[in-house]
Amino acid sequence: MSEGFDAVDIIRAKRDGLHLTDDEIDWVVDAFTREVVAPEQMSALAMAICLRGMSPGETARWTAAMIASGERLDLTGLGRPSVDKHSTGGVGDKVTLPLAPLVAALGVVVPQLSGRGLGHTGGTLDKLEAIRGWRAALTVEELRAQLTDVGAAICAAGPGLAPADARLYALRDVTGTVESIPLIASSIMSKKIAEGAGALVLDVKVGSGAFMKELASARDLAETMVGLGREAGMPTVALLTDMSTPLGRSAGNALEVAESVEVLSGGGPADVVELTLALAREMLSAAGLGDVDPADALADGRAMDVWRRMITAQGGDADAPLPVARERDVVVAPEGGVLQRLDAYGVGVAAWRLGAGRSRQGEPVQAAAGVQWHAVPGDVVRAGAPLLTMHTDDPARLERARQALDGVWTITASTPESARGAAGVDGRRVSRPMILGRVQ
Amino acid sequence: MSEGFDAVDIIRAKRDGLHLTDDEIDWVVDAFTREVVAPEQMSALAMAICLRGMSPGETARWTAAMIASGERLDLTGLGRPSVDKHSTGGVGDKVTLPLAPLVAALGVVVPQLSGRGLGHTGGTLDKLEAIRGWRAALTVEELRAQLTDVGAAICAAGPGLAPADARLYALRDVTGTVESIPLIASSIMSKKIAEGAGALVLDVKVGSGAFMKELASARDLAETMVGLGREAGMPTVALLTDMSTPLGRSAGNALEVAESVEVLSGGGPADVVELTLALAREMLSAAGLGDVDPADALADGRAMDVWRRMITAQGGDADAPLPVARERDVVVAPEGGVLQRLDAYGVGVAAWRLGAGRSRQGEPVQAAAGVQWHAVPGDVVRAGAPLLTMHTDDPARLERARQALDGVWTITASTPESARGAAGVDGRRVSRPMILGRVQ
Repeated sequence: MSEGFDAVDIIRAKRDGLHLTDDEIDWVVDAFTREVVAPEQMSALAMAICLRGMSPGETARWTAAMIASGERLDLTGLGRPSVDKHSTGGVGDKVTLPLAPLVAALGVVVPQLSGRGLGHTGGTLDKLEAIRGWRAALTVEELRAQLTDVGAAICAAGPGLAPADARLYALRDVTGTVESIPLIASSIMSKKIAEGAGALVLDVKVGSGAFMKELASARDLAETMVGLGREAGMPTVALLTDMSTPLGRSAGNALEVAESVEVLSGGGPADVVELTLALAREMLSAAGLGDVDPADALADGRAMDVWRRMITAQGGDADAPLPVARERDVVVAPEGGVLQRLDAYGVGVAAWRLGAGRSRQGEPVQAAAGVQWHAVPGDVVRAGAPLLTMHTDDPARLERARQALDGVWTITASTPESARGAAGVDGRRVSRPMILGRVQ
Repeated sequence: MSEGFDAVDIIRAKRDGLHLTDDEIDWVVDAFTREVVAPEQMSALAMAICLRGMSPGETARWTAAMIASGERLDLTGLGRPSVDKHSTGGVGDKVTLPLAPLVAALGVVVPQLSGRGLGHTGGTLDKLEAIRGWRAALTVEELRAQLTDVGAAICAAGPGLAPADARLYALRDVTGTVESIPLIASSIMSKKIAEGAGALVLDVKVGSGAFMKELASARDLAETMVGLGREAGMPTVALLTDMSTPLGRSAGNALEVAESVEVLSGGGPADVVELTLALAREMLSAAGLGDVDPADALADGRAMDVWRRMITAQGGDADAPLPVARERDVVVAPEGGVLQRLDAYGVGVAAWRLGAGRSRQGEPVQAAAGVQWHAVPGDVVRAGAPLLTMHTDDPARLERARQALDGVWTITASTPESARGAAGVDGRRVSRPMILGRVQ
C-alpha cells in the first residue's frame, strides 16, 4: 500500500479532470476504509467522479481497491462450474427465486449472495423471508456445504465482502452521488467479484421501474460492468431487459414467492418464464453447457426439486402456507378497452407504501403486503372489472398506495398502437420485447 | 425560513447543472449552520458548485444567506463615512498597516476586521502582534469607541459574523473545493458586508504569490465581488495588482511592521508606497473625498500620528523595539548581472517555513521570522553580494526554507527584457506595473 498521499491533492486532481493513478486510487479507497480519509472528503471526490467520470482503467482499479478492502470467497473445488447472477433491480423481479434452483438442477453451482430492498424495488432476501423458518444468514462453511449438497444457495452477503463499498454506498446515498456509471458499476462488480463465482450473468433493467431509464445509459452501465468482469478474469455477460412494465403479475414478498413457485411448477406469467429461461441459458452457456434446454427442467419438476431442497437447507418450510394480508382493496377499471400501459415505477411505489419495502435500512417489511395486477398491456379489460389488488396488514397505508397508482395505467378504446398483440407462452400477451439487448 | 427541503435533492439539482432557487439556498446554508445538513453533504454540494458554477443571482443569494447566519455590525452614526479594504492575500503585503491610519488621518473611518495567515501568505493580525502589548480582540463597543476616537482599528473579526462562512471555509479547505469563484467571492463578501462599512475597496492579487495566478480569473473574481457589493448596497471597487514579485523588501511579521513604519515615516519601498497611495485614493474617492492627495499625509506625519494612536488604543507600545530573530542566514548572489525575476510564491513559502506563518489554524507563529530581499527585479547585483536574508528563531528551519528559495530568482548578464528600468519613488526600480486593472 502506497503511503504519503494527500486526500485534497487527489480530490483536486479529479475535480480538474485528471486521471487518478493506481497508487492514488489504492490509497484513497484504503484510507477511506480506515477512516483516515473523512466522509466529507470522500463525498467531494465522489461528486467530482460523478461530474468528471473515470476511465475504464481507473474504474477497474477502483473496483480492485474495493475488493481488496475485504475478504474474497473461494468457490473453487466444488467439482462443478459456478455462475452468479445479478439484477440491477426492478418491480416484480422475482426471477432469482426460480432461476437459481433451475440452473443448479442442470449441474451448475449457483451462489446467490443477495441484498435487501430499499425504496421501490424489492429485495430477494425479503421475499424469501416470507417463507416460514427460512433464514438468510449462512456462514462461509454453511454456504460451501449447501452449494456442494444442493447446488444453489440464496443468502445474505456478509459484511466482510468489499466493506469499502458498503461504506461508500451509504455515503453516496445521502450526498447525491449515486448516479455515476463508474461508481455504480464498481459497487456491483466489487461485491460480485469478491463472491468468487466462475462467471457472472447480469440483468440490467431499463425503464421507468429501473434505475436506468434509458437504453443508452443501461448499455453503458452493462458495458462497463462486463469490462470489469473481463478485467478481473470473471467472464461476464449482460442482458438488457425491459422494466417499463412490472414483471409478472405481482410485486410484494409472499406474492412473489407464490408466483415463483408457479414458474417452478411449469406455469407462471409468460414474461417471468421468458426472462428466467433467457438468463438460465446465459448461465448454462457461461458454464459450458450451452446445449442444455432449461425449459425441460421447469416442465419435469427437477427445478422444483432443487427449490425445495434449497429452502429446506436454510430452515424454511417449503410446504407451509404463505402469509396472507389482513386487508385487501381492489382497484377496478374505470372504463373498458385495451390496457395500453402499466407503469412499473408507480406499481413499485404502491407496493412499497403498502409495506412490502422499507424507507430506511433496518426497517421491517410486511411479508404479505404488495400489489397484484389482473391485466398486462395488450389485454382487453371490462369497465368495473378488477384491475389491481392492494394487499397490506395496515389499512392506514391504503390511501397513499392508491395515490401512487393514480395515472399508472392507460386504457383506450382502440387496439394498442405499438401492439405486441402476439399471444405469448401460456396465452399471456407481451406488449414489447422483454430482452432489449445483450452485451458481452 | 422555508422548510421541507431535502439536501439530496438540492445537491442533485446543482450536480445536474440546474439553478438553485432562493428558498433552496436559504435553506441549505441555514441547515448547514444548524448542523442539519451534514458536512459530507455540504462538501458534495461545494464540489458540484466548483464544477457547475453559480449564476450571479445564486451567488448573491448564497452571500446573503451566509450574512443571515450571524450578526451584522452597524457602523453608521460615527459622523464620518466609513470605508473597508480587503486584499485577497500576497507575499509581503503589509499595505493594511500604513493604509488604515493614512486614510483615517484624512477623515475617513476605517474599520479593518482582519484574519490570521494560513499557508504562504501572512496575516495582518500576526504582523501587528509582533508589537509588544498589542491585542487583536476588540468588543463591538471597543471597536466603535476606537473608530470614534482614532478613526481606524485593525482587529480580529469576531465569530459572530457570517458563521456559516467560517464553517464552510474550514470544510472547503480539506475537500478540494476552495477554487471556485462564486464560493471565494461569497466567502469574502459575506464577511465584508456583515462588517457594515459604507463602502469597500478590494485589492485582488494576481500572480505566482497570489491565489489567482492569471489576470482573467482575477478579473472574474473582482467582477463577481464588485457585483455582490453593489447588490448589497455597499459601493465596491477593486484594483487588480501584481503579485508575481513579492511586495516591498521583506515577508514576515516584525519585518513587515518595520517596513510599514518606514512608509508611515515618508520612506519605504516604492512598490509598497505606490500601492498604499493607490488604495488610499480609491478609499477616499469612495468616501466622497476624491480631491484629497494622500501622499501629503505620509510626508507630514499625520498618518504616523494616527498609527501611534491606533496601536496604543489596542494596548501596543509603538516605541518598543521590534523582536529580532536569533538566527540569520544570508543567501548571496552566485553570479553578477541583472536580477530578472524574484518569485513571490517561493519567497512566501520560505518565510512560512522559517516560522512566520502556520500550517494549521491555531498554531503559533514567530514574530521575528521571515525573509528579506536585498534586490528587486531590474536591479544590478554583484556576484557574492547578499541577495536574501533568512530570519528565524529555530536554526533547524533554515534548510527547508533554503530549499524553497531554490530557483526563485533569475540573474542574467544582459539588461532585463521587459524592463521597467524606470526609477521609481525613492530610487527603487519597478519591473512591471503594480496596478494591472480596475473593476467597479
